[in-house]
Amino acid sequence: MPQRSDARANRERILDVAEDVFGQGGKSASTEDVARLAGVGIATVFRNFPTKAALLEAVLVRHFDRLRAEAEARLGDQDPGEAFFGFFRHLVADAKTKIAIAEALLEAGGTDDGEAAEASQALRRAVGELLHRAQKAGAVRNDVELPEVYALLVGASRAVARASLDDQVRSRMLTIVFAGLTPPPSGARRTG
Amino acid sequence: MPQRSDARANRERILDVAEDVFGQGGKSASTEDVARLAGVGIATVFRNFPTKAALLEAVLVRHFDRLRAEAEARLGDQDPGEAFFGFFRHLVADAKTKIAIAEALLEAGGTDDGEAAEASQALRRAVGELLHRAQKAGAVRNDVELPEVYALLVGASRAVARASLDDQVRSRMLTIVFAGLTPPPSGARRTG
Repeated sequence: MPQRSDARANRERILDVAEDVFGQGGKSASTEDVARLAGVGIATVFRNFPTKAALLEAVLVRHFDRLRAEAEARLGDQDPGEAFFGFFRHLVADAKTKIAIAEALLEAGGTDDGEAAEASQALRRAVGELLHRAQKAGAVRNDVELPEVYALLVGASRAVARASLDDQVRSRMLTIVFAGLTPPPSGARRTG
Repeated sequence: MPQRSDARANRERILDVAEDVFGQGGKSASTEDVARLAGVGIATVFRNFPTKAALLEAVLVRHFDRLRAEAEARLGDQDPGEAFFGFFRHLVADAKTKIAIAEALLEAGGTDDGEAAEASQALRRAVGELLHRAQKAGAVRNDVELPEVYALLVGASRAVARASLDDQVRSRMLTIVFAGLTPPPSGARRTG
């Protein structure tokens, strides 16, 4: 019987490998593949994750939790505008991985309704705090609210994941979105 | 043997019904269901569309062709800015239907690579012409290009289809995008 810390390390290694494999679109990979790449026995994987769906749900939850922690860490940044726009950019750059994991989860018969949905909501709340802080600092216009900002985030993410945009087009797309979120120069009338 | 014009009318009626059924997300509907709702015999459907995938591909192609014709019709509009922004809004509002048909096609074992991709490319070119005209009229900033504008269109469409946004959030999301596409007031520095 391994020590507790060994068991934890194994669990993390399995999650790391699974995130890597499934995040890169390898949805047909098996739990056995993950065990082999992680250098652990298949029994160890099954002890932690009884099904492929359970494994993928844990990967997705951890992925959301990490992003949320990153968002929260930026709440202390000196420049609230750069904290918000930088994190928006980061989320969109990460989208392909996240969507690939979510699709593998659904294909494995799992659901993104439970714990993954909770973790996703927590991330959304953290983005809401970054937005609020950027608005108070005058870096984002005050007349926008989280639902439409999040819709743009989801949309930009799906565009990147779906159309495999190159980095330059992605960056130019975000320039348009960010220009739309930036307050007009004072004195200028609102457009759009 | 029906007259030629009857045969054409039957074909159009079948496509209308199929667009309605599958566009509303009824991807499990069968070719028999479509025949019944269209009030034609199943043999008539099969004579026109040997498989469900062939039927769905024809529905999708016709859908793209119509949108393209609408875009082209707007090329003569008095106000090139309103022609472009209005059509952008129209495409996003239509997204749910279009994506539902495309998903039903893939699920029926069809592919959106062939004729549907051609029709989709023709629509993209028409949007490019609307964009170009709006830029010449000063309604859209000159430093944006079709790839990123189309990425935003795809993204906004996917956000609407995926997250079932209510109309108000959809409209507020587009307000942000349109503000980002509108040239800054003269004299103001570029933001974003």
